[in-house]
Amino acid sequence: MSHESDDDRSTSAAGVIPVVLCGGSGTRLWPLSRQEYAKQHVALLEGESLFQRTLARVTGPPFLRPIVIAGVAAHFMVADQAAAAEVAIDLALEPEGRDTLAAVTLAAVLAARRDPEAPVLVVPSDHLVPDVAAFARAVEAAAALAAGGDLVVFGVRPSEATTAYGYIEPGSPLPTAGGHRVERFVEKPDADRARRLIDAGCLWNAGMFCFRPDAALREIEALAPETLARVTAAVDGATVDLDAVVVGDAFRRADKISFDHAVMEKTARAAVLPVDFAWSDIGDWKEAWRLAPKDAAGVAASGPVVATDVKDSYLRGEDRLICALGVEGLAVVDTADALLVAPIERTQEVKGLVARLAADGHPQARTPARVHRPWGWYQTMDLGDRFRVKRIQVAPGKQLSLQKHHHRAEHWVVVRGTAEVTRDGERVLLRENESIFLPSGCVHRLANPGKIPVEIIEVQTGAYLEEDDIVRIEDDFGRH
Amino acid sequence: MSHESDDDRSTSAAGVIPVVLCGGSGTRLWPLSRQEYAKQHVALLEGESLFQRTLARVTGPPFLRPIVIAGVAAHFMVADQAAAAEVAIDLALEPEGRDTLAAVTLAAVLAARRDPEAPVLVVPSDHLVPDVAAFARAVEAAAALAAGGDLVVFGVRPSEATTAYGYIEPGSPLPTAGGHRVERFVEKPDADRARRLIDAGCLWNAGMFCFRPDAALREIEALAPETLARVTAAVDGATVDLDAVVVGDAFRRADKISFDHAVMEKTARAAVLPVDFAWSDIGDWKEAWRLAPKDAAGVAASGPVVATDVKDSYLRGEDRLICALGVEGLAVVDTADALLVAPIERTQEVKGLVARLAADGHPQARTPARVHRPWGWYQTMDLGDRFRVKRIQVAPGKQLSLQKHHHRAEHWVVVRGTAEVTRDGERVLLRENESIFLPSGCVHRLANPGKIPVEIIEVQTGAYLEEDDIVRIEDDFGRH
Repeated sequence: MSHESDDDRSTSAAGVIPVVLCGGSGTRLWPLSRQEYAKQHVALLEGESLFQRTLARVTGPPFLRPIVIAGVAAHFMVADQAAAAEVAIDLALEPEGRDTLAAVTLAAVLAARRDPEAPVLVVPSDHLVPDVAAFARAVEAAAALAAGGDLVVFGVRPSEATTAYGYIEPGSPLPTAGGHRVERFVEKPDADRARRLIDAGCLWNAGMFCFRPDAALREIEALAPETLARVTAAVDGATVDLDAVVVGDAFRRADKISFDHAVMEKTARAAVLPVDFAWSDIGDWKEAWRLAPKDAAGVAASGPVVATDVKDSYLRGEDRLICALGVEGLAVVDTADALLVAPIERTQEVKGLVARLAADGHPQARTPARVHRPWGWYQTMDLGDRFRVKRIQVAPGKQLSLQKHHHRAEHWVVVRGTAEVTRDGERVLLRENESIFLPSGCVHRLANPGKIPVEIIEVQTGAYLEEDDIVRIEDDFGRH
Repeated sequence: MSHESDDDRSTSAAGVIPVVLCGGSGTRLWPLSRQEYAKQHVALLEGESLFQRTLARVTGPPFLRPIVIAGVAAHFMVADQAAAAEVAIDLALEPEGRDTLAAVTLAAVLAARRDPEAPVLVVPSDHLVPDVAAFARAVEAAAALAAGGDLVVFGVRPSEATTAYGYIEPGSPLPTAGGHRVERFVEKPDADRARRLIDAGCLWNAGMFCFRPDAALREIEALAPETLARVTAAVDGATVDLDAVVVGDAFRRADKISFDHAVMEKTARAAVLPVDFAWSDIGDWKEAWRLAPKDAAGVAASGPVVATDVKDSYLRGEDRLICALGVEGLAVVDTADALLVAPIERTQEVKGLVARLAADGHPQARTPARVHRPWGWYQTMDLGDRFRVKRIQVAPGKQLSLQKHHHRAEHWVVVRGTAEVTRDGERVLLRENESIFLPSGCVHRLANPGKIPVEIIEVQTGAYLEEDDIVRIEDDFGRH
């Protein structure tokens, strides 16, 4: 069935250029997400991230090769997750986040250089749309509407009077694809107002756009000419970093404002396409609970959970056994290094909580227990007074920097794959179950020359065991 | 001050033989306690266990060397904790638990062989009595009362109408030390009855006894002659196991009944000593919360806890950061391998929860993450498909068995102290930061010849990594 409809779609459109906006940190799903581990990259859904689900949604006909726009800090996370999802992407990196006007302008400029007339679909990377076929049908309708030069925003038909989203009031109908002019955009309302907006036929603003690059650039030129100039200059001044382009520093001077405020609310070419598919931005654990499969008592459980006489709760663990007894309306989210316990109804306060944790210097606000690096990841598994044990995974073909430490010695035991270790100029191949000692001061490097990930257990010993005791002599990833 | 009163006490009594009853598993403080890690051994109070606090309470004048009665499975836990508390004990091990009649009879028989007339104080190992001086004064009064041949039970003046304890109704006053005859024992009542009992002047049955061995044996002889015969035979047939005596198998046939039911409720020589000191058996997390220091909002927090807008809650962690937001009346107890979340008011249901976990085969019901062994402890810190990482601590002067594994190789890195390693007959001394490889099948042993604990990180590799892949060739602790 899906093959047939794919074939239908591929013949009905010349091809849509998807642009996935992948900036933002998103700590609202803390402790799963962190300041340095954005919501869209967390393995939220059966081991997949929202970013990966988004890529899957914009892959295959009618979609052309996706453009992903992310911050420089997310370079390797984005590249790794795209590779793991087996989706080839064009990756453009912003030197700093400048809100959606700059990001959408960048999308339009980049797409225009491929084809100024091919419809572009701009989607956030951290939204959930379970019905991929309905989504694809909506995109085809939006592309048809955009073909005439309109800037199309998706308006999701509300399922409840939420205060979490902005609303769009549709105006006069357009002749194409069920679209409407936009009467007006409405900021996130209070609950009363939300109910009145829904009664008046308003739609949720899903933050997804479809337009022809030439049409978008025309409107941006008229309404935000300075930002267009700066983004264009930034693209002209872009540099290549491995598999990505880093747009130039001119980007840093683009106006920091949303595309809605700067363009969509002002242009006469704004159109809204009402859509019916289920959609969510999973803005807090309450929303995650609402979307998750639940038992008859309203309990959504994932991981090793034993729930006894529990109602309407969200229980999420990893390795540790979670026993909940007699609680109701509670969110319990457990990770290797941090635990959240809060009423589901108050999980929108988690964002503020994380800000306070960060202000108080708790590392759990910033970094996850498993720290992702361009070459793979590491995680501290044990920590004593004068030792630290890490598990380190190196992706196939990758290597860490050539480095040395002043204050610590390291023992490496290979527990998976085959590692190539350089130690003071000597190179050795270590197979599973082999080990090596790296005295403090020795110049060393860990590489994975193989086809499967290498995993090692590293036992560090010494009086000072922090990450900043590192002298990088040579690095594939330009770090010092 | 305490020295003066100690001196007073040492002259006022010939010496009291304390007997600490240390049987029982006590899973009501799960996940801190486990079926194989009893409540009295958990480091509940600033790193100390209730057993250690109990030992401290019965050490120094007027107390003589304590007798500790425990199950064989607790042998090394009891010995280690007594050694850590620097209290020399006589340790008697029951081949199986047979309730308190058998245990108190054993106490009386053992004490009688020291001195049939010296007063004996029998106390459970898992109760909390913060005021040690008040406790000592009460013991002196009880000893004076017992000197005339009465069997004295301590009656704690109730601070609330709890349903968690049995009650004692005092009868006619005795001429000595404020004692009374016992009018009757009352089983744990319901709440209404508890209030009426308190109005009638009843006292909590604290399960603590004081008697002369000869007097106790006389009453036991009259009321439970078979048990006395079996316990006496078991003591005659006791064997020595390192620093303990294991009483003989006759003990297994002692009646399984409480000392209260079998003797105290029937003898004419039962006396009760009303006492005023604060006392608790810490029977659940609610009681632990009640006893813990709390902030103005009623929050008792220990470990790395961030509580935001939390009321009347018990938050206890170890390494992981616990963030509680907007909860009330909640107990959150986090350990390395299990987490409990329950309303404080329902924590008495934890015992049943653990029974269900055990029935469902959850190892967290039975063993703690840190597994205690006669030679020290180990804890799994990381576990993969084909590897396991443990931290292992060996006490000074102890050694593991001489052993081999069929299915796993081991890498050892010493991170603290100096280890002596035997490998296929060869003996090597490993200092901090040195390592050794033990291929599968090699005969090896880890020993600590030094004066401080040895800690090693063990990386096991292989396809089968369970504890039962071990062949013990030689063992200090008689294990096979």
